[in-house]
Amino acid sequence: MRATLMYRAGDVRVENVRDPTIEQPTDALVRITRACICGSDLWPYKLLEPLEQARPMGHEAIGIVEAVGSDVRTLKRGDFVIMPFAFSDGTCEFCHEGLHTACSHGGFFGTGQVGGAQAEAVRVPFADGTLYVVPGTADEALMPALLSLSDVMGTGHHAAVVARVARGKKAAVIGDGAVGLCGVIAAKRFGAEQIFLLGRHPDRIALAKVFGATDIVSERGDEAIERVRELTGGLGAHSVLECVGYAESMRTALSITRPGGAVGRVGVPQDEAIPAARETFFKNITIAGGPAPTRAYIEELLPDVMEGRILPGRVFDRVIDLDAVPDGYRAMNDRESIKVMVKP
Amino acid sequence: MRATLMYRAGDVRVENVRDPTIEQPTDALVRITRACICGSDLWPYKLLEPLEQARPMGHEAIGIVEAVGSDVRTLKRGDFVIMPFAFSDGTCEFCHEGLHTACSHGGFFGTGQVGGAQAEAVRVPFADGTLYVVPGTADEALMPALLSLSDVMGTGHHAAVVARVARGKKAAVIGDGAVGLCGVIAAKRFGAEQIFLLGRHPDRIALAKVFGATDIVSERGDEAIERVRELTGGLGAHSVLECVGYAESMRTALSITRPGGAVGRVGVPQDEAIPAARETFFKNITIAGGPAPTRAYIEELLPDVMEGRILPGRVFDRVIDLDAVPDGYRAMNDRESIKVMVKP
Repeated sequence: MRATLMYRAGDVRVENVRDPTIEQPTDALVRITRACICGSDLWPYKLLEPLEQARPMGHEAIGIVEAVGSDVRTLKRGDFVIMPFAFSDGTCEFCHEGLHTACSHGGFFGTGQVGGAQAEAVRVPFADGTLYVVPGTADEALMPALLSLSDVMGTGHHAAVVARVARGKKAAVIGDGAVGLCGVIAAKRFGAEQIFLLGRHPDRIALAKVFGATDIVSERGDEAIERVRELTGGLGAHSVLECVGYAESMRTALSITRPGGAVGRVGVPQDEAIPAARETFFKNITIAGGPAPTRAYIEELLPDVMEGRILPGRVFDRVIDLDAVPDGYRAMNDRESIKVMVKP
Repeated sequence: MRATLMYRAGDVRVENVRDPTIEQPTDALVRITRACICGSDLWPYKLLEPLEQARPMGHEAIGIVEAVGSDVRTLKRGDFVIMPFAFSDGTCEFCHEGLHTACSHGGFFGTGQVGGAQAEAVRVPFADGTLYVVPGTADEALMPALLSLSDVMGTGHHAAVVARVARGKKAAVIGDGAVGLCGVIAAKRFGAEQIFLLGRHPDRIALAKVFGATDIVSERGDEAIERVRELTGGLGAHSVLECVGYAESMRTALSITRPGGAVGRVGVPQDEAIPAARETFFKNITIAGGPAPTRAYIEELLPDVMEGRILPGRVFDRVIDLDAVPDGYRAMNDRESIKVMVKP
């Protein structure tokens, strides 16, 4: 089959690879109908050192079950499924607690242990625990939104959950990438009264407003902090969704958080330490977050997607075929595109 | 009156100072019946640079209201009160949310704005909001426990609250000082199934066991981390109470926290950054805490103190008069004493 491999920063290729097969009795094979490129794929696209063995890329997908191993109980050939970006056994204590990204036997797609999703098909470990069968028939127009439940919408939701966004509160979202935009959707969905988006790209800002952002902060650094303080009577936001991952964006997040408030971080940290240990202490700020257990969130978010109450599919502003994936990386990295959908 | 002043690291003196007076109509004067020395007083005792104007010391007290300003409504001369270590107006939105240590008009005792509590008397700003009147008559034997509600017991409780200690969960307490010991009380009170104390002093360990610690970890660094992992089936503790404040103790706290767990930090951070930004992210660890809103916690903790269900007064293992305060600092700093009570 055709699959996407990354050899080093900037070097993404679509190549013929061995077809995936059922390796474990708990595996399923999924024929991918939609995949996409993630903001987190851009970190290796910027930074990856040359590899001996190229890395299979992609961890977000929806598709059709093509085959199942002998121990798979809840899935059958032909099921239409959402594949969360992490696989999980569904039976360990972390899965039972809803933290599937800490599954005792789990892991991530496109890490070498298993293939990537920017491909024609993928082997899914622990298929019963990992895959979510979409009930009934889903309209073609819903596909982008369903795909977003694999990662980006669930990740924005996670940021809002751990930042404790609640009705009537003020939320700030740092980062106008697809995750940040889904964070705006999530904050709106939880009833935030004011939603500040910290971002600078006109196309993304326009979408953020559609999603419910009430104020746009396009300043940077101290000026951005000052602006949020002005907008919040000097106090800061109750909930801040950090959707970037740099120490500098984290510093901004912590500076605009109200005493007693919370920062939900979903941008993969690029630095070794969290800044402002003392300032955050004296303000009793909570810092939470990590890889979103999107498997756990599908149940809650799916009805809103199916009935069109939230429109996370709109973060996809470009659709390409598999051979165009390398150019898709370039387009996202150059901020030409918010998020690229791949139809293999 | 006699009051404690610190001139520089190691230089604590008890001197005659001007008697405090009612300065604002919302003030009260409190004649102090019991005060104490705090672990946080030992930071300046170790590190304070020489000051032009010596710093008044002490922020924990119980005592008798001696006079009230013309706007004070809920207090009268003769009331027996607990004085939380922070003053707070009781009316701002933070006070209403129970985060009195972020009060819009609040501050801390012994900071220069107001006097310290290691003294014969103290002026208390926003007396209605700050002071808690102990109802009825309290037995002499309860005085140490009531004094602990001013800071140390409320602080241990705060660590347990923000670390989300709950029935049947595993909690770890880092630090065997008085706050850590009160953290053990709080973890036990919330029904933790296992309580690990990380500490090395035999007298403190003995008390921790009385308070409910189930396992003592006296190893340091990586060995301590390994030991807690062994005790928790490799997973770590759900809740970790960081009651020290060094980056190294924070690193230990974060390393022994279970994925999805929480660290409650109440030790004043001595470093600029929180370590392990990436490890904590991938484990979805929550980091919370700060100065405890002990004013908010008195209501909840007082019945347990009055009825002897918790015995936080036992952290006081030495009672001195005011003139002996400098030696009290030395004794605590030398680990001769867990916590020193002062009877002016």
